Amino acid sequence: MSQTLTGKNVAFLATDGVERVELQAPRDAVERAGGKVTLLTIDELAVKTFDHDQPAAVEQAHGLVGDADASDFDALVLPGGVHNPDSLRTEGAAVSFTRAFFDAGKPVAAICHAPWLLIEAGVVRGRKMTSWPSLQTDLRNAGAEWTDAPVVVDQGLVTSRKPDDLDAFSAKVVEEIAEGSHAGQHA
Amino acid sequence: MSQTLTGKNVAFLATDGVERVELQAPRDAVERAGGKVTLLTIDELAVKTFDHDQPAAVEQAHGLVGDADASDFDALVLPGGVHNPDSLRTEGAAVSFTRAFFDAGKPVAAICHAPWLLIEAGVVRGRKMTSWPSLQTDLRNAGAEWTDAPVVVDQGLVTSRKPDDLDAFSAKVVEEIAEGSHAGQHA
Repeated sequence: MSQTLTGKNVAFLATDGVERVELQAPRDAVERAGGKVTLLTIDELAVKTFDHDQPAAVEQAHGLVGDADASDFDALVLPGGVHNPDSLRTEGAAVSFTRAFFDAGKPVAAICHAPWLLIEAGVVRGRKMTSWPSLQTDLRNAGAEWTDAPVVVDQGLVTSRKPDDLDAFSAKVVEEIAEGSHAGQHA
Repeated sequence: MSQTLTGKNVAFLATDGVERVELQAPRDAVERAGGKVTLLTIDELAVKTFDHDQPAAVEQAHGLVGDADASDFDALVLPGGVHNPDSLRTEGAAVSFTRAFFDAGKPVAAICHAPWLLIEAGVVRGRKMTSWPSLQTDLRNAGAEWTDAPVVVDQGLVTSRKPDDLDAFSAKVVEEIAEGSHAGQHA
């Protein structure tokens, strides 16, 4: 793969309950393309990943989102898992950090249940998106145009449904981050 | 406790990931008051309960919701847990079974994350409710009037936030089921 992301700083935001492969696969793709990944979390740096409802590896985060500045990053990637975004959306620092990427027109990617955090950030109205199917009513009620597809790209916003979609998701994550800011990516 | 629920058939609906105490405490309260409890589920009768994100007891359900008829029951109780309602809301039989209680004006009680299933059933618009706080934006976007309180009762709809609220929740569950159908309980 060409080093299309050289010099790009990419934030990943996740906490306990994150779906392991949805953290690892896009992170590997970003790093293979030359990007630098910083894993941010809430509460404690040790992040308990899960394979569906079974505990998996513990990942060490680089820092707490409450101490981070969105302006230091070129893009944001949000892995899924059920407990993970359900916890993140109740933390003001996670919500405002996420919203800052939309305010700045920077690429954001979210897979599986992660779009719950985008609902909380108030950034989905009028956006074309997909997600794990259980979220479709919440996303439509928040104003999103939800479709059932492996990956949906809308002006710097990349969304996918589940681990089976990771190849398509990771490819679009790299592509959108390489393109940089999008005029249509807004809060 | 007086046998205020003698002759009342109460359905509980849950699947894997249900919060153990949110199933057991209201069930005990209904049974102590003389009510008959039928635990319904989806997929498989063995229901894996959790204590937050840790696997707990396996409960044996009495039947599948797809084989059940809401008209056989006087009320519906929905325990929480994160994975549980996230799965139930994607099953058409669980959604239509839930909606049928509102169509008939029968009492429905939901705690913690269970109100996601009520969003999916399209029955929360204009209703006073509470829930685990992560759901408040989803509930407001669906038209509910969300408040932060241990228990909220609105015309046969009983909602609570978390395990700490179970004493208040279970007491109101028994009280509302004893009262029977409510004219203001509607889809």
